[in-house]
Amino acid sequence: MKNPTASMVVIGDEILSGRTSDTNINYLARKLFKIGIELKEVRILKDCKKSIICSVNNLKKSFDYVFTCGGIGPTHDDITTESIAEAFDLKIEIHKEAKKKLKDYYSRKNKKINSAIFKMAKIPLGASLIDNNLTGAPGFQIGNVYVMAGVPKIFKEMVLNILPTLETGKPIFTKTYIFLIGEGQIASPLNEIAKEFTDLKIGSYPFLKDEEYGVNVTFSGVSFELIERAGSKLKSIVNGVK
Amino acid sequence: MKNPTASMVVIGDEILSGRTSDTNINYLARKLFKIGIELKEVRILKDCKKSIICSVNNLKKSFDYVFTCGGIGPTHDDITTESIAEAFDLKIEIHKEAKKKLKDYYSRKNKKINSAIFKMAKIPLGASLIDNNLTGAPGFQIGNVYVMAGVPKIFKEMVLNILPTLETGKPIFTKTYIFLIGEGQIASPLNEIAKEFTDLKIGSYPFLKDEEYGVNVTFSGVSFELIERAGSKLKSIVNGVK
Repeated sequence: MKNPTASMVVIGDEILSGRTSDTNINYLARKLFKIGIELKEVRILKDCKKSIICSVNNLKKSFDYVFTCGGIGPTHDDITTESIAEAFDLKIEIHKEAKKKLKDYYSRKNKKINSAIFKMAKIPLGASLIDNNLTGAPGFQIGNVYVMAGVPKIFKEMVLNILPTLETGKPIFTKTYIFLIGEGQIASPLNEIAKEFTDLKIGSYPFLKDEEYGVNVTFSGVSFELIERAGSKLKSIVNGVK
Repeated sequence: MKNPTASMVVIGDEILSGRTSDTNINYLARKLFKIGIELKEVRILKDCKKSIICSVNNLKKSFDYVFTCGGIGPTHDDITTESIAEAFDLKIEIHKEAKKKLKDYYSRKNKKINSAIFKMAKIPLGASLIDNNLTGAPGFQIGNVYVMAGVPKIFKEMVLNILPTLETGKPIFTKTYIFLIGEGQIASPLNEIAKEFTDLKIGSYPFLKDEEYGVNVTFSGVSFELIERAGSKLKSIVNGVK
């Protein structure tokens, strides 16, 4: 059986203008990798309803899971919730439990609540909430789409809340071998190994650091024994070649 | 006249597995923003021919520019060049000038050259080269698609080489105002401002830092005077509200 697949949609003009450097992608990628869910595509989109709807409709058909972050706050530029509702052809309503969570949070923190804040309790009909104890405003899940906040601390909390509910895959092992030779020197032996060990994913990542250069070769797969075998074989070929 | 638009395609399993945290997106985003080119979408894709071809075909129709990074090295997992060639329905051939650049680089560095390395001289027919003095292997441009390396240092060099050749737009000014109140408190005044200043893009970015929270409000547009006017008005409304 194949491992579950996933895609991610990052919504926010601030990433595309370069004002903010995203950290949520790497966080989610590592978390999914650990539990055997294969992240296959990420899209970073502007705060634009049309492109969010189009991408989400496309991705929710192609992958087992879609995770979004960003655009669920109370301001005019937060349009993710209405876009997702439209993608699923659902109405948005004040969700009683979400409203209660916001009220509780604001009274606990002794902060004034107003009608703008209740925008964050508007959820597509039939969606389940994703908790956020940091600021009270929940994310939500509808079908295979998980809608979360963009602020990294809140995003992380929401991810930790949903992870135990996801269908996991076989754990993927990875081992990296470092070779202090040019990528061109390793290309041909690596090609042989890739042809022999078709059950492994083999990546070749050249690096340049000051005057030093080399290649990180990563082997990934469900069998650690196979990874070790491929790695040793590559090492012995390269050492013979050198 | 509208500013030129762009999209970016990042190709590499290592970003999607979380092994590597991308830095190229933010670099390119900031460079494009400065010269008035609007980056509207980024896709991170696996080393998979089908998804690269499909995305590039889609994006090159939708945006003025497409910039790709990753997958142009000499190893088995480097499939960007052949994917781009297929997207444009072009053959790949050894490009004489590219081959010479590689030869020159390897002899200058006193390094052995081999046939695997010449894979990096294979370029879609009719494409122009993008220089890379760091490792000799060029990127290339075909139509509105710019194909560059994934190693950040080389990517940056290639970006600096192509920037002067791009059609620029009107420079976009940005100013950020920081408010130490909750996003819910600012939502309603911000909504008023957004309705009044329709020529500006107004973003609202809440932050949480230790026990402090607040909102960065950014105003972007081609008129700095308008930005200042909107910012002052928002400040006066918020101070009145508080």
